[in-house]
Amino acid sequence: MKYCTECGQTLEWKTPAGDNLERLVCTSCAAVHYQNPRIITGCVAQWQGRVLLCRRAIEPRTGSWTVPAGYMENGESMEQAALREAREETGADIRLDALYSVFDIQAINQVYIIYRGVMRSPHIAAGVECSEVRLFEPAEIPWNELFYPAMGEMLERYQSDLARGRFTLYTGTSVSGRVSSIDKDQVQ
Amino acid sequence: MKYCTECGQTLEWKTPAGDNLERLVCTSCAAVHYQNPRIITGCVAQWQGRVLLCRRAIEPRTGSWTVPAGYMENGESMEQAALREAREETGADIRLDALYSVFDIQAINQVYIIYRGVMRSPHIAAGVECSEVRLFEPAEIPWNELFYPAMGEMLERYQSDLARGRFTLYTGTSVSGRVSSIDKDQVQ
Repeated sequence: MKYCTECGQTLEWKTPAGDNLERLVCTSCAAVHYQNPRIITGCVAQWQGRVLLCRRAIEPRTGSWTVPAGYMENGESMEQAALREAREETGADIRLDALYSVFDIQAINQVYIIYRGVMRSPHIAAGVECSEVRLFEPAEIPWNELFYPAMGEMLERYQSDLARGRFTLYTGTSVSGRVSSIDKDQVQ
Repeated sequence: MKYCTECGQTLEWKTPAGDNLERLVCTSCAAVHYQNPRIITGCVAQWQGRVLLCRRAIEPRTGSWTVPAGYMENGESMEQAALREAREETGADIRLDALYSVFDIQAINQVYIIYRGVMRSPHIAAGVECSEVRLFEPAEIPWNELFYPAMGEMLERYQSDLARGRFTLYTGTSVSGRVSSIDKDQVQ
């Protein structure tokens, strides 16, 4: 970010009056340009005990497997955003049942808001950002090819929750790929 | 947003290739400028059954009461952001116990991530963005002077949860000031 979105002039790092952090401030009109974490919404969904994953056809980590998820857009609710991403990436028709995970990846300024749900039919079709979509039996999950470690931790918990029929909220901050939290084990 | 942050030239609304939404795209360098919802983190905290609220000294709704909360910054975890906001606005030293509420206000592109916690001491001191900070007994809460309706709904639930000693996750999308959700009543 180099230029002001309001007047097109150059920006400089500066602490605005009343603030305590350096921001990108316009050298001409003094507009302050805040930068904040972005939200990724998605869902972990199943069909008769098999979990829905898609394989990334885009960077980063092209070829890795993940639950359908993507950036939440302005103008949508969290649930709408999660369902839209699932539909776009996997073609699946999903009924969301509950919020399942809220975690941040502090190092890259992202917050994940993930629901759990059940597919209304086994129909799937890879979207433009995916090379493949598949339903995995618990024993088949490609643990070594997942998008990133927190995704693996969430899927491990999901499999265990699914097997016992009781779900716990998975929330916290991702540190070295594991989610460390004040309330990981809360019953939901 | 009128000018490109990368080259300073003018922007136009346009659907980039492979996208299905109009974005602000630079007429010169073709950089796409995404706009996404922002996250507000905070906490509802108590001291011996009294809930901590602060009175806004800034727009919007100057003079209204709210739980300490504000924009999450790049580089912090959700929990760090919630504690920082509470400290800045109320001076309180809080122990976060659990995630309490995750809801969006779709109309203004905001997602709220609110924890619940307990104050380690009754010390409070209004920060620069507050005109007053106070601990309220359940019967004293200024219901008609709260920041917005979803805040009132969350505080009603919090009081009820606190009284019975069992907390439920408050999550969903704010429609006409009430939070409508798939899983409002899940036990946490």
